[in-house]
Amino acid sequence: MEDAAGFHSWFAGRSAAHRYRITPTPLHDLDGWYTDSATGDVRHRSGRFFSIEGLRFEPAAPDAPAWTQPIIRQPETGILGVLLKRFDGVPHLLMQAKMEPGNITTLQLSPTVQATFSNYTRVHRGAAVRYIDHFLTPGAADRVHYDALQSEQGSWFLGKRNRNIVVETTADVPVHEDFCWVPRPVMAELLRVDNLVNMDSRTVLAGLPDEVTGDGSGEAPLPGRASEQPLHDTATLLHWFTGAKMRHRSERTTIPLRRVGGWHRDDRRGEIAHEAGRYFRIIGVDVEADSREVPSWSQPMLAPAGRGVIAFVSKEIRGERHLLVQARAEAGTFDVAEIGPSVQCNPGNLAESARRPPYLDAVLAARPEQVLFDTVHSEEGGRFYHAENRYLVVDGTDIPLDVPEDYTWMTVRQLTRAGRIGNLVDVEARTLLACVRTLPGHGASR
Amino acid sequence: MEDAAGFHSWFAGRSAAHRYRITPTPLHDLDGWYTDSATGDVRHRSGRFFSIEGLRFEPAAPDAPAWTQPIIRQPETGILGVLLKRFDGVPHLLMQAKMEPGNITTLQLSPTVQATFSNYTRVHRGAAVRYIDHFLTPGAADRVHYDALQSEQGSWFLGKRNRNIVVETTADVPVHEDFCWVPRPVMAELLRVDNLVNMDSRTVLAGLPDEVTGDGSGEAPLPGRASEQPLHDTATLLHWFTGAKMRHRSERTTIPLRRVGGWHRDDRRGEIAHEAGRYFRIIGVDVEADSREVPSWSQPMLAPAGRGVIAFVSKEIRGERHLLVQARAEAGTFDVAEIGPSVQCNPGNLAESARRPPYLDAVLAARPEQVLFDTVHSEEGGRFYHAENRYLVVDGTDIPLDVPEDYTWMTVRQLTRAGRIGNLVDVEARTLLACVRTLPGHGASR
Repeated sequence: MEDAAGFHSWFAGRSAAHRYRITPTPLHDLDGWYTDSATGDVRHRSGRFFSIEGLRFEPAAPDAPAWTQPIIRQPETGILGVLLKRFDGVPHLLMQAKMEPGNITTLQLSPTVQATFSNYTRVHRGAAVRYIDHFLTPGAADRVHYDALQSEQGSWFLGKRNRNIVVETTADVPVHEDFCWVPRPVMAELLRVDNLVNMDSRTVLAGLPDEVTGDGSGEAPLPGRASEQPLHDTATLLHWFTGAKMRHRSERTTIPLRRVGGWHRDDRRGEIAHEAGRYFRIIGVDVEADSREVPSWSQPMLAPAGRGVIAFVSKEIRGERHLLVQARAEAGTFDVAEIGPSVQCNPGNLAESARRPPYLDAVLAARPEQVLFDTVHSEEGGRFYHAENRYLVVDGTDIPLDVPEDYTWMTVRQLTRAGRIGNLVDVEARTLLACVRTLPGHGASR
Repeated sequence: MEDAAGFHSWFAGRSAAHRYRITPTPLHDLDGWYTDSATGDVRHRSGRFFSIEGLRFEPAAPDAPAWTQPIIRQPETGILGVLLKRFDGVPHLLMQAKMEPGNITTLQLSPTVQATFSNYTRVHRGAAVRYIDHFLTPGAADRVHYDALQSEQGSWFLGKRNRNIVVETTADVPVHEDFCWVPRPVMAELLRVDNLVNMDSRTVLAGLPDEVTGDGSGEAPLPGRASEQPLHDTATLLHWFTGAKMRHRSERTTIPLRRVGGWHRDDRRGEIAHEAGRYFRIIGVDVEADSREVPSWSQPMLAPAGRGVIAFVSKEIRGERHLLVQARAEAGTFDVAEIGPSVQCNPGNLAESARRPPYLDAVLAARPEQVLFDTVHSEEGGRFYHAENRYLVVDGTDIPLDVPEDYTWMTVRQLTRAGRIGNLVDVEARTLLACVRTLPGHGASR
């Protein structure tokens, strides 16, 4: 498989080879799950996997309102791993055609390994996770390029993290029929296809090495500092970020789900919803699949209301591409705030009287020649049901350098390096960064 | 004040100018504090400042034992700030002679600003904190070199953090009589004096810029990558650290202090102690001072049992000084594990049957010519009573490169850079790093 046409042919074959059935089911009918009668929390009978609970969020800033909301609590840390190997000097990524119950298109392109802790320790009593050894116990033929604990959606998960790993191997790797070596240049094309490359893939791709040289020596040396002209140096960015963490600090308390105000459980439909229909619903699904570790199961899912907008404003400053980023504090953020994209919002969730988020209208009004990237991608189909966002990169030549205090400008390379450390860059920014790094003039390698 | 003699003359003058009285007092007699009758927790009547509670720590690893212990809970984030200014091209640090009730010598050298959130928002109704504006609202003459949320003692505090800041100013700065501009080369000498430079100063000094050039352009450019020859690259170190976080993950739960096993409250002495006399006691003190924001107060303190050993093994590898570091998970560590020194232990706390920590005996048995640094420093005198540790740097030419899985080698510069990010390097490693960076061949600048 050397080009996108070859990929699509293989992928269509995988879609035809498997059968799946996803059936929405009331929460009270979900096999293996129960609602705690005292708290209203939704839990698995084994006590494992995840639960739906309530959260109270109280900002320390005196003028910021407190709120309560349902939230997914999943203390386990899973693994998202991409295996990389060079063929004729070209880096290829081992990707997987994988069904997730929340996917609009059912099958999407997943990383080599996408496994919860329950999966890879085989609590499900399913099959062993393929290729997991390259990530859990890298051998002499394996080289780790990227390994970080990374947050996922802070407005839906309480402090959830997954381990993101990229391993380059020189070992022979048997390729199972649901897997495929995708050349890195082809991956750049696939990222432009709606709802194809799943969230778990995108977050790992954000951490790919800048450039893989053909001589086997690994990552090319970064150009010397003199060749990069960031608007802000590292100390200035860390000062900005620490200041934002101080401003946004908060008290968070888990509370019984039934005590979350403004939300109700509809016992007839068997779901949990917001009284104005905003934000999301908690629903149940029954799943039948012939290609998963376990052939059938039931689970709750979070179904967002409508499609969000996730966008970077990109601007050339001092001859270097910069991205407008914001420090975002969400209810479930692991450590107060992380670095998010220029715009991250679901316009349908805004009350009519609400202030529009900065830069949202500028992004939505961009002229066609300003739009550098515009693709609809899905969020994680294992927890989120039909969760789509429009991912945009917009040239912001007209956007002033002077920005509100929660915003700043970072070069693509500064954001990429920050993203490799873990828990500094949020999942929306990371998955869009994976796309940004394929744009002309925005690659970390030049 | 241009040399160490001038400093000591000024410091002796400050010691003579103030009067203090610290009186150990039973916890039940402490003004403003009470013991919760249901839980046994020790709290301030205002609900602020800090509390002494119980903690249950359950490692996820199946062979690791769980335990309970008393712990200090202080959710507020204070500020530790050092103001830097060049005189005739020489960087000087504005330091403060400050009394803390737990100090053995009462007066130690503090940062320009050492203030709890209650201090600088004036909950104490004390005087305004001097120089705080340079750190809270840096002006045009101020440049921030370092700004990070940093952890403090993970075995004594539950997730406590302070904001560490270094600001360089070109503004005129009026110098109050308790403050003094210390030339950076003199500070290197003062760090070799027992119990003089306090913990809060040392942790901030660890983040000083590598080299301050004389031409006003700020930090000198880092030498190109080719000039540094680390044993492990950044990706390998992050892989090691993430692996350690996975191995050491745990469940932590605050519990009533009276349910902490193996500890008891001695009602006659009015203190809380471990049944074998190990670890620490919680005691009370009454304080009278003529130089603090508030002239008298009472508070609980943690009094450690005996003196600990904190050491780096230093080894030249590939022509570059490396430090042996370990990933340490302590009860109160903010995020599972941080990077600690080669040895961090209180030998008196080891049960006779306990395994000796790796490298402890090698450090204690070092020949005189191997000992590069050996000074007794105090831990924070605002919470800890007479808490001393012996800080050592030992040349480890004989120590093998191959180390246990929780250990690795980092160059001084790699550790310095990691320390600037926040919550990656523990307070013991940071305060010793401030000393390491003054050693020949160990400076981040060469």
